[in-house]
Amino acid sequence: MNQEVFHNRDLLAATESGPADLAPVILARLREGDTASILSYLKGQHPADVANLLANLPSQDASRVLRLLPLEERADVFGYLSMDDQLEIGRALGRREFAKVVSEMSADERADLFNRLPQDQQETLLPALAQAEREDIRKLSSYPEGTAGAVMTSDYATLPPNITAREALEALRLAAPDKETIYNAYVVDAQRRLTGVVSLRDLILAKASAKVADIMDTNVIHARAEDSRADAARLIAKYDLIALPIINGGDALVGIVTQDDAMDVAEEEATKDFHKVGTVGTIATSLKEASIGLLYRKRITWLVVLVFFNIFSGAGLALFQDTIVAHVALVFFLPLLIAGGGNAGAQASTLMVRALATGDVRLADWGQMLARELVVAAALGLTMGLAVATIGVVRGGPEIALVVVATMVLVVITGSLIGMSLPFVLSRFKLDPASASAPLITSIADVAGVLIYLSIATFVLG
Amino acid sequence: MNQEVFHNRDLLAATESGPADLAPVILARLREGDTASILSYLKGQHPADVANLLANLPSQDASRVLRLLPLEERADVFGYLSMDDQLEIGRALGRREFAKVVSEMSADERADLFNRLPQDQQETLLPALAQAEREDIRKLSSYPEGTAGAVMTSDYATLPPNITAREALEALRLAAPDKETIYNAYVVDAQRRLTGVVSLRDLILAKASAKVADIMDTNVIHARAEDSRADAARLIAKYDLIALPIINGGDALVGIVTQDDAMDVAEEEATKDFHKVGTVGTIATSLKEASIGLLYRKRITWLVVLVFFNIFSGAGLALFQDTIVAHVALVFFLPLLIAGGGNAGAQASTLMVRALATGDVRLADWGQMLARELVVAAALGLTMGLAVATIGVVRGGPEIALVVVATMVLVVITGSLIGMSLPFVLSRFKLDPASASAPLITSIADVAGVLIYLSIATFVLG
Repeated sequence: MNQEVFHNRDLLAATESGPADLAPVILARLREGDTASILSYLKGQHPADVANLLANLPSQDASRVLRLLPLEERADVFGYLSMDDQLEIGRALGRREFAKVVSEMSADERADLFNRLPQDQQETLLPALAQAEREDIRKLSSYPEGTAGAVMTSDYATLPPNITAREALEALRLAAPDKETIYNAYVVDAQRRLTGVVSLRDLILAKASAKVADIMDTNVIHARAEDSRADAARLIAKYDLIALPIINGGDALVGIVTQDDAMDVAEEEATKDFHKVGTVGTIATSLKEASIGLLYRKRITWLVVLVFFNIFSGAGLALFQDTIVAHVALVFFLPLLIAGGGNAGAQASTLMVRALATGDVRLADWGQMLARELVVAAALGLTMGLAVATIGVVRGGPEIALVVVATMVLVVITGSLIGMSLPFVLSRFKLDPASASAPLITSIADVAGVLIYLSIATFVLG
Repeated sequence: MNQEVFHNRDLLAATESGPADLAPVILARLREGDTASILSYLKGQHPADVANLLANLPSQDASRVLRLLPLEERADVFGYLSMDDQLEIGRALGRREFAKVVSEMSADERADLFNRLPQDQQETLLPALAQAEREDIRKLSSYPEGTAGAVMTSDYATLPPNITAREALEALRLAAPDKETIYNAYVVDAQRRLTGVVSLRDLILAKASAKVADIMDTNVIHARAEDSRADAARLIAKYDLIALPIINGGDALVGIVTQDDAMDVAEEEATKDFHKVGTVGTIATSLKEASIGLLYRKRITWLVVLVFFNIFSGAGLALFQDTIVAHVALVFFLPLLIAGGGNAGAQASTLMVRALATGDVRLADWGQMLARELVVAAALGLTMGLAVATIGVVRGGPEIALVVVATMVLVVITGSLIGMSLPFVLSRFKLDPASASAPLITSIADVAGVLIYLSIATFVLG
């Protein structure tokens, strides 16, 4: 068997420690001037792995390794680098070399990078690019972040409707080197309006003399440039598309979003939601590389906001000072009862936030969800109430046990209904449902819990 | 412009209320026996949308609509149905019709469905399938759930190394109708061992007389059937692959995982993690369709476990009964202080759980992360302590203010370190880091918070 094939047999294990272990070896070779052995190593590697290696080198050395590669491969590798590494290594490359790499990058990656460059670097870079690329950057950069327009690429293949399958195949063969994908080609009219889509598979299977217009699928799944990138990714996942064509306000084809970009978008969106439900601001960079200052800023706002919610809980307790002093045993059940409502609420909000994000549940389902949640929460509250009833009797006597059980049922129902509803309320007001984070729900449920608990206690115990 | 193209212009808006609104219309036509108009409507629809419609019909009616379609389209539509709907509509179709549809399904979807059928239905279905399909199901069903083997399909295209590009293109053209993708073809030797991969794009660009062995890429990114499906999805995302070849213990090619399946896997894994950090068991079905009993079962276990954690908090309070009775003002700061530690801990665990899941952070990074978290947490704790200091002075006097600030700093650091470390500890013992959920961290931080608070209070206030 060919030895080379199974170089990456333990790829997952190798990348686990690979690039970090490899970096010193590459550095040493670089210092010795042994670029030949570095180059021969790089030749066998996937661009994603080379990018991984570069990210582990100081940027000056990374730029030297990058220069060893042929220009086209340089751009490939560059596209796999994180935005921060692109900026840093780009700076180390020098303006002329950087411009060369940028020219060779795919249109969407180039536009993304350009948007992140500081104004002065943009201005020094622009004149070094060809007219077509400048125009392309201008167009792709014009869509706001988070839209389909901002993640699409303009490297797509188009066909006129009136040519034959044989001519179309020949056209795609000529277009192939410059296009992100040729497996789907988009059929446009003279005004560039999208009239159909044809897959390379269909073209290969069709008779050579068949007209593209007769083979193409006219029911083209597409999105608009101003639609959200999350919606575009959802369409690609739902319809199992290789690429999704994007049209502008005049119905003209302006770009495509490919499946691999959609996967990245879906992962980034899931991470954003994950961070939000943990009350952390979105950390766009790698967590590993995030600075202490960035982490502090992304976490402190919500923590302080929550502190003020918790002050309400304290104020609630102060309101019932007399009851507490008269029955100090009530305090021992406080953590139990307010946590119970918070935990059930956190469960409910987590389920809803995710279901709303994946499109499993829609705003219109609110009523139905609320009714079901009421039944589930009552059952959960009763079970939890019974679980603590004995402790109530033992530690506080039958009267306190009654208070504890009644409170548990009520706080679990209250917490669950708040947790379940808040994502819908946010969604209703066009806010992000993921802001209904577990800690926020817990803090709101805490205030409700304190009031419910001590009201019942005051009523029952006098 | 062709009218039909923009039928789906407002696709996102239409699917929002579409299938639910459409179902009664289709039902009425079905009752009137007007199958012709239903069929003409279905013709223009994507199989995913037809599946969406069927899911909104009673299963008997859904099976009648399905029968209107040609067999191959029936299988396409069937593949887009949820597993539960496949089982229900399959039952309504009757054994013979069901077997026909199952035969036409793609190999991976067929094996998944088969695995979910009750024993007796499996036994009645098997004889109705052809030998090749039975064999295929047996092979694909032999890998445990959660592995790459369990999500792969056997509908892939292979080529021998010694034919020309022209011959390869002809071979792919013949293979196309039965294969999941022909955009990548896998080059295997006589023992079916994977020796290379060649893309359709490369074949089209190559000289007609070039040998496949000379065009193919021998450095094939691949996974093993027993690797986790999440790892397979990560490889596809990392290397932007159209499909990932899967080999068995003998290095023979046994299947491929396609990019659209990887997208589904990534979404399911993210949902599983989401549910776990909200202390909910994995709900494999749609949340909208989940029964009250299922929701109760998936939520009650953790809620009761957490109740017992919270009992420890209560016991901690009881331990310091004398201090509390002497200084009842301490109680008012209790929610504030224990929530502070829990919230900071929930943030830290959320960040780590997600970073470990996406591979951004690895087990080896624990030490570095711990050191950084210590600094961040100290800064967060100080800020939060200062935020509540005034209230401490106003509501409890300077001594209590001192206790409150000191406690806040300590509980935030403690909570953060617990929250940050638990995902690593779980990962270290080969458990799922996502089990370090926000409510679990909050409950552990509560116990620590009570002990720290009242220890400091007892020390300072005597």
